[in-house]
Amino acid sequence: ELAEYEKLSDQVKISEEALRADGFGENPFYHCFVAELLPAGREPQGPCLAVGYGLYYFIYSTWKGRSVYLEDIYVKPEYRGQGIGSKLIKKVAEAALERGCSQLRLAVLDWNERAMDLYKALGARDLTEAEGWHSFRFEEKAMRELAGK
Amino acid sequence: ELAEYEKLSDQVKISEEALRADGFGENPFYHCFVAELLPAGREPQGPCLAVGYGLYYFIYSTWKGRSVYLEDIYVKPEYRGQGIGSKLIKKVAEAALERGCSQLRLAVLDWNERAMDLYKALGARDLTEAEGWHSFRFEEKAMRELAGK
Repeated sequence: ELAEYEKLSDQVKISEEALRADGFGENPFYHCFVAELLPAGREPQGPCLAVGYGLYYFIYSTWKGRSVYLEDIYVKPEYRGQGIGSKLIKKVAEAALERGCSQLRLAVLDWNERAMDLYKALGARDLTEAEGWHSFRFEEKAMRELAGK
Repeated sequence: ELAEYEKLSDQVKISEEALRADGFGENPFYHCFVAELLPAGREPQGPCLAVGYGLYYFIYSTWKGRSVYLEDIYVKPEYRGQGIGSKLIKKVAEAALERGCSQLRLAVLDWNERAMDLYKALGARDLTEAEGWHSFRFEEKAMRELAGK
């Protein structure tokens, strides 16, 4: 759903199996908070409904030390406008502070004004706008050529 | 030196002690390749001269899986133009492939055309230009406000 929302679904190339293996081992590659709705009616034991998630990992800055990167944040369209996104960011900020992190970074697409406005309202700064940072990526093919493999 | 080169030295707030503690434990926050010059003359046991470094860590994409982020890459001004930067990137690409990573990401300041041209020549894509990604950052103060601390 997030990939569709960001109009980049053609780039999704990972299996559920790999996601499980990489996130739930001894040294997981990522951590995640899931926003769930309690079961409707009087069935407290019933299944919860996942309506959003925030996926993050620890990164490092040689200027600021331990940091957190919020890789994905997503709330289902029909549950937006209720503060669920802000609560997910808040939980990630708490986890970051607990581990002694001094910054929380994330990236957003420039047409996603709603998200940009939210992050700014919560106190984030647009570093691409303010300092001119551009994100670059080497895909696997380019990496193999670099490594001579 | 890197911070001075990027004109952001006022943002450096980390001690050598913290850098050591975070990079050399059991689960280090980062990894690093250092480019060294062999001792001059006939003293093979003499000290090497560090002329550059590439500092990276493992990140995660829910679309592409395990990935590497090259946080810093720096070559001393007097040693540029000899391919040392390319060799550092090549080493990081090798380390990434060894751990099953499918992409290598990094960020560069828009006025640093020399670096941008190098990354593009080596096969990287400017995602800010191509897709409109902007980097955002919450500083510690904003994080504490979010977390109510």
